[in-house]
Amino acid sequence: MDRAGARHTGADSAEGRASPDTARSPLTERSARVASARKLTRRAGRERAGMFLAEGANAVLESLDSRTAERPRTEVREVLATSEGLRRVPEIAERCAASGVPLWTITERAAACLSETVTPQGLVAVCEAPATDTATVLAPRPSLVVVLLDIADPGNAGTVLRVADAAGAGAVLFAGETVDPYNGKAVRASTGSLFHLPVARERDADTVLAACRGAGLLLVGADGAAHSDLHTAEESGRLDVPTAWVFGSEAHGLGEYGERLDVTLRVPIYGRAESLNLATAAAVCLYASARRIRPDVK
Amino acid sequence: MDRAGARHTGADSAEGRASPDTARSPLTERSARVASARKLTRRAGRERAGMFLAEGANAVLESLDSRTAERPRTEVREVLATSEGLRRVPEIAERCAASGVPLWTITERAAACLSETVTPQGLVAVCEAPATDTATVLAPRPSLVVVLLDIADPGNAGTVLRVADAAGAGAVLFAGETVDPYNGKAVRASTGSLFHLPVARERDADTVLAACRGAGLLLVGADGAAHSDLHTAEESGRLDVPTAWVFGSEAHGLGEYGERLDVTLRVPIYGRAESLNLATAAAVCLYASARRIRPDVK
Repeated sequence: MDRAGARHTGADSAEGRASPDTARSPLTERSARVASARKLTRRAGRERAGMFLAEGANAVLESLDSRTAERPRTEVREVLATSEGLRRVPEIAERCAASGVPLWTITERAAACLSETVTPQGLVAVCEAPATDTATVLAPRPSLVVVLLDIADPGNAGTVLRVADAAGAGAVLFAGETVDPYNGKAVRASTGSLFHLPVARERDADTVLAACRGAGLLLVGADGAAHSDLHTAEESGRLDVPTAWVFGSEAHGLGEYGERLDVTLRVPIYGRAESLNLATAAAVCLYASARRIRPDVK
Repeated sequence: MDRAGARHTGADSAEGRASPDTARSPLTERSARVASARKLTRRAGRERAGMFLAEGANAVLESLDSRTAERPRTEVREVLATSEGLRRVPEIAERCAASGVPLWTITERAAACLSETVTPQGLVAVCEAPATDTATVLAPRPSLVVVLLDIADPGNAGTVLRVADAAGAGAVLFAGETVDPYNGKAVRASTGSLFHLPVARERDADTVLAACRGAGLLLVGADGAAHSDLHTAEESGRLDVPTAWVFGSEAHGLGEYGERLDVTLRVPIYGRAESLNLATAAAVCLYASARRIRPDVK
């Protein structure tokens, strides 16, 4: 909350800057600032800039909180908001002011340009994607880790991030061809958990698995066709150790990676459903581990 | 699979009827058959007709299987399909023929009219909503039951149905102002489980709770603010009895109903997430009960 640490304070044009004393005309979708934020709605733009957008009241507030968190820490470059959005969520202007994060008012149309939702909330934080890697996030030796392997759907990825956070996981690793964790839909589905948990990306899945093994984690894959079932493994004490849960693609599961893990387990199906979806299967698996490891009790 | 049991076989006009020997012109969106099916995309239309639509290859095949199931049993009035859809999923024409369910080809535009998805699969079954009630579905004394109370989102309702099926629940009760289980999005999200599990609707939630109690079920509510947590309850043997899990609205939880249940439990949050979403919370709760009750072992 160090005002002296605020950046940009002198350099910004006064136009659009939200300030307590003057009402300026809001930035339109044609302004350079909105145009450059808009590039972050695409993966290529995010990767080029190393930045992403967090949309909605909850995500913006979480991003602002995250600036002062121990770990992980996300820098917020600026917040873009409609005056209606600021009226609805007055804490945002207060927190921006308290932490020296530049706040700009934008038009409703500019907000629609930056939004991937049908009804934009008119509140967007422009954030720096934390520069980190698999080794760094595994360095504190977390006792519960999630590996997402070739997960295609951003909603699924974000929901699993939320479940991982709830179950006390210490990191989520995006491996292989998995969707970008900073995709707008993934950020929204994580409901703030993206700002709670260290996340790293690595295209080479074998590197991720080796790093987990090197960090003393048992590699456990979720596989609907596995011989052993989760509850039996849990009862036998198999899950009483630091574990990396590996979840494979919605379409093809773990594929060839299944054989390279220490064990694969299926969530037992007691009824006639063919399977669980990714997020509900992950919830059952991660809570089975959490029950045993109690990751909150360090 | 009794051909003699087929209805409608004589009365239908030949136009549009898919048959192995002749190619007729497909039904358009202006045909009476498609127009009357289209009414089932709205709740009022479904309630008036007592029928609903099951869309997509998986749902159509499940509905056809359900006709010969022990319980629940759904009657399929007819299947409407584009020729492209039938080419892609040839089992549908085979199963319709084998079971005497009328099959009609429709145009792509007619399929789009009947679909609530962006990319319609061109495969729709017109089904009768089973006429049942809470007392009937509880009569076989299931050991695990799910009560959905004021759940607004059809995707959530369908996903919980799928989880309930996987966890071996014997019934799902839609209580209060809960979304229609036969809503197209709910049917899709259930991925066939709507055809596996007896489902009943009752607007008076107290009637549902009383019926569950009368059926010997412990009434357990999921509540993020409850004092007792799920794992402690599970370890103490509290969940070793026939249980009705009650899940409240996404926005307001159990509300006043919490006090009328035997116990409310929270899923412990080990990390910094504020909560789990409905489907993942239900997965953790229902599998905790399933682990204890093993509903497959009757």
